Amino acid sequence: MNNVTKIRVNASGCYDILLGSGILQEIGKAVSERFSKCSIAILSDDKVFPIYGETVMESLRNEGFTVTSYVIPNGEASKNLDTLTGFINHMADAHITRTDAVLALGGGVVGDMAGFAASIFLRGIKYIQVPTTLLAAVDSSVGGKTAVDISAGKNLIGAFHQPSLVYCDSDTLQTLDPSVLRDGFAEVIKYGVILDKDLFQVVSRPGQADINIVIARCISIKRDVVEADEFDRGMRGLLNFGHTLGHAIEKQSNYTVTHGSAVAKGMVIAARIGAAYGMPDYTEEISRVLVDYGFDITCPYNAEQLYAAALSDKKRSGSDITLILPREMGACSLEKMPATRVLELLKQIGL
Amino acid sequence: MNNVTKIRVNASGCYDILLGSGILQEIGKAVSERFSKCSIAILSDDKVFPIYGETVMESLRNEGFTVTSYVIPNGEASKNLDTLTGFINHMADAHITRTDAVLALGGGVVGDMAGFAASIFLRGIKYIQVPTTLLAAVDSSVGGKTAVDISAGKNLIGAFHQPSLVYCDSDTLQTLDPSVLRDGFAEVIKYGVILDKDLFQVVSRPGQADINIVIARCISIKRDVVEADEFDRGMRGLLNFGHTLGHAIEKQSNYTVTHGSAVAKGMVIAARIGAAYGMPDYTEEISRVLVDYGFDITCPYNAEQLYAAALSDKKRSGSDITLILPREMGACSLEKMPATRVLELLKQIGL
Repeated sequence: MNNVTKIRVNASGCYDILLGSGILQEIGKAVSERFSKCSIAILSDDKVFPIYGETVMESLRNEGFTVTSYVIPNGEASKNLDTLTGFINHMADAHITRTDAVLALGGGVVGDMAGFAASIFLRGIKYIQVPTTLLAAVDSSVGGKTAVDISAGKNLIGAFHQPSLVYCDSDTLQTLDPSVLRDGFAEVIKYGVILDKDLFQVVSRPGQADINIVIARCISIKRDVVEADEFDRGMRGLLNFGHTLGHAIEKQSNYTVTHGSAVAKGMVIAARIGAAYGMPDYTEEISRVLVDYGFDITCPYNAEQLYAAALSDKKRSGSDITLILPREMGACSLEKMPATRVLELLKQIGL
Repeated sequence: MNNVTKIRVNASGCYDILLGSGILQEIGKAVSERFSKCSIAILSDDKVFPIYGETVMESLRNEGFTVTSYVIPNGEASKNLDTLTGFINHMADAHITRTDAVLALGGGVVGDMAGFAASIFLRGIKYIQVPTTLLAAVDSSVGGKTAVDISAGKNLIGAFHQPSLVYCDSDTLQTLDPSVLRDGFAEVIKYGVILDKDLFQVVSRPGQADINIVIARCISIKRDVVEADEFDRGMRGLLNFGHTLGHAIEKQSNYTVTHGSAVAKGMVIAARIGAAYGMPDYTEEISRVLVDYGFDITCPYNAEQLYAAALSDKKRSGSDITLILPREMGACSLEKMPATRVLELLKQIGL
């Protein structure tokens, strides 16, 4: 295919990420090159499926695949065990077997759930990610982290299960709400700060960069991190820059603050903590870019509130918390410290 | 420790199976040699926990582990998503982190659920199997297959997640109901037929063999199979001798026929199909041993009923069904055939 960027990931499974503009109607061919004829169970949501569902199903059917679909309400509230069970029962009713596949058509919620469903159905079948949000394209669709939320917390159950193909038509981003697109840019900016100062420069002025180039760059960074540390025991933790405190903010807000907005706030707090911790101060530089994108970077919670929420973060091991702090622009480091030290630092920066 | 048989499994994780009589109160030491001090969340049931719970908890606490317990009703009816969610919420409330562990104290239901909970909680933590039934000791506690049932079927969701330790005190089998113990012998006899004709001889008269030797032999066979085919893509299928049709019988009976009883019936049907398929006829030999153990080996369902249930078996791939048939005693083979051929064979043997 013309105008398709191919990025290969070598993790526990080896798979391609295909990226381009206006390529959705050719998905059947890409799947056909990688899968034997089988049944494909699509999970999508009621915002995405009406726009892109038929294109995807027709393209797959034209290549001889049997296709079924299961559509859930758009939004994080769907990311629960009841919805998951509904989709799994749908797969069972459709007689999906071990040689069949799941396809996620949508954003992070759909991708995380479809991937988790694929990882546990019959103890694991293949799946395809078709991200339709910027956040899913640059982050959640790559790397095999899958999950659902339970009452005790977000993403508290899940699995590492690599997709067999990621297929991203960047034209799908054109139908996103501006606030959802902005949320994705929080992750793009994060990649710049942690591992790629050129990317940070490229995206520092909203609306200037070629979106396909930006997505490809982010995916390449994530690919490198996942290949080095698929199971999140070391450097993959870098991807949590802004997330430890971001998750705390999401939790304290009862998830009324979106993920991207919370990560934006979390990155600014992390930058401030970095300075208080004796590292260079990038608060100004990071804040300016985020404000230019329209993020509200104020934090409505105090040190004790953030600390209480961070204590229940699933990344925590034993009594320590690991923060990701900028050593220099494009080079962050993992700083493991006693949880109580995090509380001190949060107070020190005036929260 | 004296009188402990150690069997090492080299799968995606490497772990020990420790087996002996009267060793339960020393479990803390065995865990301590393999785990850093951490929190351990025990899953058990209301038949097993009152007898052995305190012994296990005290032994672990004496070695410096923090221990919590979650007790579910005994029986297959507990093996569902609600119970699983209850245990996972318990783990979250107990602040179990990625460096902590789960311990399954009980039979197959507890072991399968605890293993699945460990595999998905925080995307995977370690777990320990402490089997207290013969079936769990020789089969479900070894090899990393974990699962729960959903309305669409038994074990329809699950994961491959190897335990970090299997610790089996064969004295716990003394408190089993005779029918539960007998159910375990269906699996023991299965091992003999598929891979070990000496074992088949050893156990062919009930009550004659040393139980520790029998368990060790079964575990060694299962270890070899799991090491050769951990993810069930080939020879691990041999362990399903009697199970494809056994599962169909369980399903048709709405699970009023127990797993072991159904496997016994399934093995006799498989032996009869083997003969009809042109292989040597072991129906007599297998039936005689099963009847001596007290199994009812008659099948209350006809060919169509078994076929309909087998069609929804999760092992099925595409339109084929794989049956395990005895080529000779101690040597079975996997015979993949169109599903409709299975129906023909079932009719041919008069079902």
